[in-house]
Amino acid sequence: KTAIEYQRAKSTFRYVEDVSPGLRLDMELHSVLHASISEVQSIQVIETCFGKTLVTDGKTQSSAHDECVYHESLVHPAMFWCAYRNNHRRHRHRRDGDWPRSVFIGGGGELATAREVLRHSTVNRVVMVDIDPTVVDVCRAHLPEWGGDAVLDHPRLEYVVGDALSYVRDTDEKFDVIIMDVTDPIEYGPAEALYNVEFYIIVRDRLEIGGVFVTQAGSASFVPMEMTMEGGGGGRGDGDGDGGDDDDGVDVHDDINDSVEDGSCLAPIRNTLARVFDHAIPYTAPVPSFGEDWGYVIAYDDVVVLDDDDDDVGTDTTTSKKTHVADVGRDVIDDMIE
Amino acid sequence: KTAIEYQRAKSTFRYVEDVSPGLRLDMELHSVLHASISEVQSIQVIETCFGKTLVTDGKTQSSAHDECVYHESLVHPAMFWCAYRNNHRRHRHRRDGDWPRSVFIGGGGELATAREVLRHSTVNRVVMVDIDPTVVDVCRAHLPEWGGDAVLDHPRLEYVVGDALSYVRDTDEKFDVIIMDVTDPIEYGPAEALYNVEFYIIVRDRLEIGGVFVTQAGSASFVPMEMTMEGGGGGRGDGDGDGGDDDDGVDVHDDINDSVEDGSCLAPIRNTLARVFDHAIPYTAPVPSFGEDWGYVIAYDDVVVLDDDDDDVGTDTTTSKKTHVADVGRDVIDDMIE
Amino acid sequence: KTAIEYQRAKSTFRYVEDVSPGLRLDMELHSVLHASISEVQSIQVIETCFGKTLVTDGKTQSSAHDECVYHESLVHPAMFWCAYRNNHRRHRHRRDGDWPRSVFIGGGGELATAREVLRHSTVNRVVMVDIDPTVVDVCRAHLPEWGGDAVLDHPRLEYVVGDALSYVRDTDEKFDVIIMDVTDPIEYGPAEALYNVEFYIIVRDRLEIGGVFVTQAGSASFVPMEMTMEGGGGGRGDGDGDGGDDDDGVDVHDDINDSVEDGSCLAPIRNTLARVFDHAIPYTAPVPSFGEDWGYVIAYDDVVVLDDDDDDVGTDTTTSKKTHVADVGRDVIDDMIE
Amino acid sequence: KTAIEYQRAKSTFRYVEDVSPGLRLDMELHSVLHASISEVQSIQVIETCFGKTLVTDGKTQSSAHDECVYHESLVHPAMFWCAYRNNHRRHRHRRDGDWPRSVFIGGGGELATAREVLRHSTVNRVVMVDIDPTVVDVCRAHLPEWGGDAVLDHPRLEYVVGDALSYVRDTDEKFDVIIMDVTDPIEYGPAEALYNVEFYIIVRDRLEIGGVFVTQAGSASFVPMEMTMEGGGGGRGDGDGDGGDDDDGVDVHDDINDSVEDGSCLAPIRNTLARVFDHAIPYTAPVPSFGEDWGYVIAYDDVVVLDDDDDDVGTDTTTSKKTHVADVGRDVIDDMIE
Repeated sequence: KTAIEYQRAKSTFRYVEDVSPGLRLDMELHSVLHASISEVQSIQVIETCFGKTLVTDGKTQSSAHDECVYHESLVHPAMFWCAYRNNHRRHRHRRDGDWPRSVFIGGGGELATAREVLRHSTVNRVVMVDIDPTVVDVCRAHLPEWGGDAVLDHPRLEYVVGDALSYVRDTDEKFDVIIMDVTDPIEYGPAEALYNVEFYIIVRDRLEIGGVFVTQAGSASFVPMEMTMEGGGGGRGDGDGDGGDDDDGVDVHDDINDSVEDGSCLAPIRNTLARVFDHAIPYTAPVPSFGEDWGYVIAYDDVVVLDDDDDDVGTDTTTSKKTHVADVGRDVIDDMIE
Repeated sequence: KTAIEYQRAKSTFRYVEDVSPGLRLDMELHSVLHASISEVQSIQVIETCFGKTLVTDGKTQSSAHDECVYHESLVHPAMFWCAYRNNHRRHRHRRDGDWPRSVFIGGGGELATAREVLRHSTVNRVVMVDIDPTVVDVCRAHLPEWGGDAVLDHPRLEYVVGDALSYVRDTDEKFDVIIMDVTDPIEYGPAEALYNVEFYIIVRDRLEIGGVFVTQAGSASFVPMEMTMEGGGGGRGDGDGDGGDDDDGVDVHDDINDSVEDGSCLAPIRNTLARVFDHAIPYTAPVPSFGEDWGYVIAYDDVVVLDDDDDDVGTDTTTSKKTHVADVGRDVIDDMIE
Repeated sequence: KTAIEYQRAKSTFRYVEDVSPGLRLDMELHSVLHASISEVQSIQVIETCFGKTLVTDGKTQSSAHDECVYHESLVHPAMFWCAYRNNHRRHRHRRDGDWPRSVFIGGGGELATAREVLRHSTVNRVVMVDIDPTVVDVCRAHLPEWGGDAVLDHPRLEYVVGDALSYVRDTDEKFDVIIMDVTDPIEYGPAEALYNVEFYIIVRDRLEIGGVFVTQAGSASFVPMEMTMEGGGGGRGDGDGDGGDDDDGVDVHDDINDSVEDGSCLAPIRNTLARVFDHAIPYTAPVPSFGEDWGYVIAYDDVVVLDDDDDDVGTDTTTSKKTHVADVGRDVIDDMIE
Repeated sequence: KTAIEYQRAKSTFRYVEDVSPGLRLDMELHSVLHASISEVQSIQVIETCFGKTLVTDGKTQSSAHDECVYHESLVHPAMFWCAYRNNHRRHRHRRDGDWPRSVFIGGGGELATAREVLRHSTVNRVVMVDIDPTVVDVCRAHLPEWGGDAVLDHPRLEYVVGDALSYVRDTDEKFDVIIMDVTDPIEYGPAEALYNVEFYIIVRDRLEIGGVFVTQAGSASFVPMEMTMEGGGGGRGDGDGDGGDDDDGVDVHDDINDSVEDGSCLAPIRNTLARVFDHAIPYTAPVPSFGEDWGYVIAYDDVVVLDDDDDDVGTDTTTSKKTHVADVGRDVIDDMIE
């Protein structure tokens, strides 16, 4: 006797991210916890099938499901590599076992990168410079599990609102590990200047001898292995002491073009770093909420054993850059000017 | 010189409503202004390409773009039809031109149905009974353009929190126009009891002589015209004078089954009303944010001129049901047989 | 004991049509029966929730579910209006009851428009001019239910491969009904020239006295009723005999701009026709597979009773255009030049 | 002057695969090259943003873009591991350097797995048993780049239409490498019986001493590393020589339940293999067209050096299973019966 609908129409909310042209990741959207536009970027905190998720400028930054993968993969390889290569040697001013002590984080507003750094008991100073205090506030309010006030109020953390480029350029401080956790290098985007040779030269100068640099490097899904290998040939640390500028065929612009075809910027970032550091090692981690594998690059210089007058103190070291950094830098800059 | 991405990945938020199996309306979601779960239903206020939109239990209720279409199509045909059929006759107790005066609204929590009713200057009393005060509060806060406090505080409006069925069953008051603006008749849904014969018999009894009933009637997109015509045969005048509740051959379930095939409940609602009222007239309006044309049914009884002793007062009237419901039913069935 | 997946991942194929910016109709895609690119357009025959569907240049042309709505709404109002306004009068050369006899179809490659025309027993000649023989072949092969060979081989149908504009410009033949069933007036699209004043002047000249023109007119969903009404004021048949050019405020470009805001071209098409014909009447029909209500415009000229020397034959008629067509045409063209 | 639409509505075809509840991979669909339903499964060859793609039963099997990743990752680790562990030792009947010689492929209808196997010059016999000859025919016709007739007509390949389970159960032949390239272990799916302990016991018996087994193992994206490690504890090769049945707490059903939570079957497949083989090693590869990282498991038994009477021939070997296979097998089967 009742006129009823048996099949109820249903609606769903979706969060759809274009991974590449023609490919979308389409996620159920459970809620929008926060949406605002700061002076730097749009910011949303949403809940999807990956749990709470931070989105800035329309790109997923991290999600409850796999932010651990992203942040642990960013932090720990660089930290342990720094420890490994230094702790087994005797240094003039340091005792074994206390590497790394000082860490610089560029970006990192989610506070999760600092969280992972602070898990290393050797660390006694972390400087985190993020340009957008709104992101930090939003993460404190909505994503306390990422770190929140427990990280922000940590006595070993110094949080600076500002531009990472300016900070590293103007400071005299040196760090054992420098971690770049900023958004992808979009043309005219806020982080564009943090992925080029000029920036990397400055960063290298802010590393302690034996220090390690690491940066997130965007999508890695479409990077054919051959390309990364080939790109490696364009690196600087090719052992002939001339800073890698002999193979002039390596054109960063070519790399960029390749990367556009690939929908990836891992290879060009790695190659850019290889022009500055002795070693630039790409690696990847699967981050399902990004819809693809994610890339990182660790970069560092060789450490050269120096003769030292003071035998009592023991063998001292320096980075290889001491011996040829001026030349290399000049070569690189000459290349750039040409 | 910089490793940049030339094509920035983009994300969009979408609101996707299943219109029928295999068919979705996929709308850009600009923002979620409100999301809550009341005691009755889930409630969201979102912004899509149709502007601000109220969603309850996963179904679009109305949007800024076309709520005017929905609400005006619901209110004014019934109001004007009531005026038209009554105002040109002399009544014992009423003067020409003052129809309709009293209106009952079942549901209508968005306050827009009451808004349209109040535009009729003849109306001096509106009773609106909605079961979910949370919807009313949400609409006041987020959709003031729909009516909001201007309607809620209107001196001619009485707003009652409660169940429309109980109210009409328990009141002695009669209304010139009764408007049902409740959610679709979902099985086990909150409005299921407001679309059956039992309810319509009660409602008819609450109509003034010459009064008009109207209800929203769900999707109309897939209703073939033949079906509605044929379905008309299931009307009320089944000749036994008992109000049509002995379903002699007219099987509402058949209607329902048809409607399921059509993804529409307009035909069965019209047919259910035709079992109770002399006339049950379906009509439709295009409501783009619903993804389909929308159905309504106006129902009313014939008014029969009665002999009246008191010639001074003028011709009096009653509804046909008082005097000749059996005959009318017989006519309808005769029509069907021919 | 077996390592199995309990929930199998599933994939679906979808056909997604952008109805307007921010709004998509997302249909289940059951199969792709045909896909090709002719010299004129891309052509697909697919199966969706609406059954077999013809798609050209990425737009749904008609579907098994509701092609009857589209084609019947296009053909029969014009045919019956032509019959109604002529069959009750005596004509010099025609007897009562034989209107309409000749029909011109511009486009109509699906063969369904001709199918509906041929249902009128008065019709003894149908000329169908479609520019793309591939569409006709595809429809014959894949959509025989639309008409197919039964229509194409019909003795009363003449099918011409060619451009409707050239055909009507070059022929001396006149028709009782002219039906334009071509794709929407996209800028630089194949049918762009079939929706402007120049074409309509030519078409009017190919109509028999008492003839009727009709065209499909694109989406009607977003056209507010006020706009269509207001636009009506810009029409030519405003009763002052001057061809409607007194209200110079009617700017077709404004109409177009309005239509862009509305996502509809019904109003500007109606207004363009109103500059040429005495009457231009828009109407709509719900076509669910288009995701919106669809628009049509019927246009025709008044028929004026003339004095006639030969009383034996009876009253003769002409269209109003006999009296002022030259002036009107000149006015219109002058307007256009200004 | 013309009533045109400025923004043409557009449609797209999409191929949408549910990766997990709430998560979809939404790909542009360029064409459907083939669609059929064989006796075993539905089969489609489509073109997406990943190029030509084979889909069976609604799941992407491989795409032009990354089928190399999938197939090379499946084949070469097992092949090289087999070569590595055998070629440096002297065998009674084999000379150094000729491992692997014989390979069995279960499934592999795309012919790409056989293609990769045939790249190994040591291989002189490949038996490929696939249950669905339609898939093979479709791949030959539409995906010749995957291998096609060049593989099917290869003199070293024997292609058998049939059930891999029956074949390995009934044959007396032994193989150096056994590769399972069948669809995922769906409940009641065609490949369900190819992922359980019973099948793996049979398979182990068909491996030559020193042989290696490998299977694709479904999605790996959501498998936390800890779980795989923990599950590893349930393996048989735990070094205590009792076949791993001491940790009775390892319940395969628990693994399955975990896997359902994870949307992954890599862990339970690995654990099931660990009940049968001394070693069961999971590994993953990123396959973007699957929307996630993909899992594989290599399994093999230790090779035990035996005393041999004939010193002239050299040291002989056997697999560890010689020493305790009966017990282990009995244990496993006892477990299963309980």
